[in-house]
Amino acid sequence: MIHNLAKRAHDRNWTLDPIVRSLLDTDWYKLAMLQFIWKHFAGTRVRFTLINRSRSVRLAEVVDETELRRQLDHVRELRFTRSELIWLAGNTFYGERNIFSPGFIEWLAGFSLPPYRLLREEGQLRLEFEGCWEEVTLWEIHALAIVSELRTRHGYARLDEMDLDILFSRAKARLWSKVERLAGVPGLRFADFGTRRRHSFLWQEYVVELLAAKLPGGFTGTSNTYLAHKHNLEAIGTNAHELPMVLAALARLGRLGATGLKDSQYEVLRLWQEMYGKAMQVMLPDTYGSTQFFRGAPDWVADWTGVRLDSKDPHVGGEEALAFFAGRGRDPRKKLLVPSDALDVDLILGLHARFGGQIQPGHAPGDFRSARDFQDPAKWRHEPRCRISAGIGTNLTNDFAGCAPVAVPEFAPISLVCKVTEVEGQPAVKLSDNFSKATGTPGEIAHYRSVFGTAGLAEVPVTV
Amino acid sequence: MIHNLAKRAHDRNWTLDPIVRSLLDTDWYKLAMLQFIWKHFAGTRVRFTLINRSRSVRLAEVVDETELRRQLDHVRELRFTRSELIWLAGNTFYGERNIFSPGFIEWLAGFSLPPYRLLREEGQLRLEFEGCWEEVTLWEIHALAIVSELRTRHGYARLDEMDLDILFSRAKARLWSKVERLAGVPGLRFADFGTRRRHSFLWQEYVVELLAAKLPGGFTGTSNTYLAHKHNLEAIGTNAHELPMVLAALARLGRLGATGLKDSQYEVLRLWQEMYGKAMQVMLPDTYGSTQFFRGAPDWVADWTGVRLDSKDPHVGGEEALAFFAGRGRDPRKKLLVPSDALDVDLILGLHARFGGQIQPGHAPGDFRSARDFQDPAKWRHEPRCRISAGIGTNLTNDFAGCAPVAVPEFAPISLVCKVTEVEGQPAVKLSDNFSKATGTPGEIAHYRSVFGTAGLAEVPVTV
Repeated sequence: MIHNLAKRAHDRNWTLDPIVRSLLDTDWYKLAMLQFIWKHFAGTRVRFTLINRSRSVRLAEVVDETELRRQLDHVRELRFTRSELIWLAGNTFYGERNIFSPGFIEWLAGFSLPPYRLLREEGQLRLEFEGCWEEVTLWEIHALAIVSELRTRHGYARLDEMDLDILFSRAKARLWSKVERLAGVPGLRFADFGTRRRHSFLWQEYVVELLAAKLPGGFTGTSNTYLAHKHNLEAIGTNAHELPMVLAALARLGRLGATGLKDSQYEVLRLWQEMYGKAMQVMLPDTYGSTQFFRGAPDWVADWTGVRLDSKDPHVGGEEALAFFAGRGRDPRKKLLVPSDALDVDLILGLHARFGGQIQPGHAPGDFRSARDFQDPAKWRHEPRCRISAGIGTNLTNDFAGCAPVAVPEFAPISLVCKVTEVEGQPAVKLSDNFSKATGTPGEIAHYRSVFGTAGLAEVPVTV
Repeated sequence: MIHNLAKRAHDRNWTLDPIVRSLLDTDWYKLAMLQFIWKHFAGTRVRFTLINRSRSVRLAEVVDETELRRQLDHVRELRFTRSELIWLAGNTFYGERNIFSPGFIEWLAGFSLPPYRLLREEGQLRLEFEGCWEEVTLWEIHALAIVSELRTRHGYARLDEMDLDILFSRAKARLWSKVERLAGVPGLRFADFGTRRRHSFLWQEYVVELLAAKLPGGFTGTSNTYLAHKHNLEAIGTNAHELPMVLAALARLGRLGATGLKDSQYEVLRLWQEMYGKAMQVMLPDTYGSTQFFRGAPDWVADWTGVRLDSKDPHVGGEEALAFFAGRGRDPRKKLLVPSDALDVDLILGLHARFGGQIQPGHAPGDFRSARDFQDPAKWRHEPRCRISAGIGTNLTNDFAGCAPVAVPEFAPISLVCKVTEVEGQPAVKLSDNFSKATGTPGEIAHYRSVFGTAGLAEVPVTV
């Protein structure tokens, strides 16, 4: 056997195995939001903070600071390439061409990420990004993906070559058993939302390529823009909590014109539809509680296409969303639900049973565990109550717990987020439908609760 | 990424992907028997025949005749290399040096396989090897491994690259789950006996390397001489049915001196111990029925180290063997059982529970399913009733059924053997402990039954 001597020499000597290979290696909605921010809120001073909600995991002992700096520094050196910018400008997103304006594309051509601030604090990493919102915001996904993969690599170091081979064999076998359960379910749709907490870039790429090839009807695409570009897939995404969070903080400061705190959540939608029209009207109602959001929504909000369900039991949240549309006289069958919170195969199948068709008497969503159940007309008929398309994250791109031949604590996913924490010196707040997911200072959270109330909120343990 | 252009060009253009890479790629006992044959029975005319006991599988429609000829022709071109001969001469087998005589090694240096005869007959392959016993005998394992792997390759053709990746991932995951169940069981010993019906050479090599690395105490080695040589493992083996079968046929012809048909089975052992001494005294009693074998055995047979259990329920056969030793006044605790017939993990654990220790009242061999059961002193104590070392074959080296993402009938193992069928024009006969495993012409089988009886025989379906 003739060895590839160049490769072997290179493999022993490379200086950096980059985790983020391109500025496109981010969720697509970050770019859609970036244009929104660039147009309406350029110059707004914000701070993003990495928050490890799994406090028992002492991140700073797992993630090597030097390596983290090298990876972060590498991302700062990245630029959008000419091919990437041409693709962004020329591609069709959600059926629309020219989503991105020439001025924005031109601005992107000169874009690079600003400096970060990194400290170690009581076993945790204190990683912060401060600056103009349009410069800082992309750090979120890159920082999360880097920390997540560095944790993975720390786990790799516990394994020899055979162990690693077994690790990936079992992870692939596990993934394939998910594919088998999702295959053949009439009307089932889902996308990859797993960039931020992925096991690794290469694993996410493997997952996405496999799903695209083997579930062509059901797998609608990936939130990862780089992978969508590279593999000719749909880039999928809606919008995130940072928009209402920043606008709420600005409203608190009296800097959102006449719009007050409570109305700021709808101002996001108004500006968004002004920019993107019908193409991307999936609202995210849970920033300050979905129940109050629907109750207080202006009637035009009910013209939006759909609702992303991100922190409430999606069976409950989905019913609430459909009731909102029906109560406003809109036909729920034309609306779209996008459950995206800690989904796994069982939950996806159960939600599809409930919302994607008619469950026959005597059955319940939990009875639907494989394609066979959906193909039995005595149990279920494919007469959708609405459209539904799930976004699977960590369970798709980082489901390695128990796959290694030895115990590797680094492969248990943790709840890591990177959230906007300050806006023009004002604390940013998210309440969410789940008390455990609230972020912000206690005083500000209390104030927001006094304004938005706590209707429909629940206490649910956060895993990922 | 820089491609290995030489490799890529080569991969598209090679003329043969050899299945058998070396004449050592055979069961070690074939070489031990070869020296026996070479010394005592050189020139005896025999015929070996490939027999597909799974008649419903039309082998000739799966195995391409041209490719089969190319693979068989390739083996005919192989010679024992100088390094291989030095290793055979210098290595220690079963604790003995110089097992192979200088004269035999010298003869091996000039060895090559004689021609074969290949016909297609009613959807089956008719593959026969005729000639002097010492020239023909090695064909058995090479022919079986080649047909087995060609069947595998026919299955590969149904799969795309991703399917193949999933196939091996699942097979590896399945293998690892076996390792997990076998690990940590006190005193458990087993070896790879899976050359002849392996999925492929490379898979067998993967399995052997994995077991050697990950179960260093329990995995004692491999019957595959080439892999033992290459990976510094023990070459494991005893002796096979062909010895008593040929000697019985010679006895039928009156060519075994004064030794008659019934005594020919013990003449094998007498000549064997004359050649190999104490090192390799594991008898194979089932050629004409174990029960009659033990009943009629001369007393010196009870001095042998152990018994290979190859066609009777090994729980029953093991008890019978121990009763034989005890009945002849020998201490069963010093004896060795080598179960080798269609073993899987459950059977190995059950046999080890029964013979490798003391099962406590209220428990049965079937209750022992993992290391945990063996570590519970209320269930089991490691006070061996005898020594026991299992030989796993197909279940280790070809357990791919259901691993592919699509149906691949070629991955279901079949019962393929290559047996001596004729000796100097006289039909060769095996009765075995299982009526289904008998080989020979009906007339001769009837005659052998009249001589050996049918005590202790059973009817058990043959799978592999």
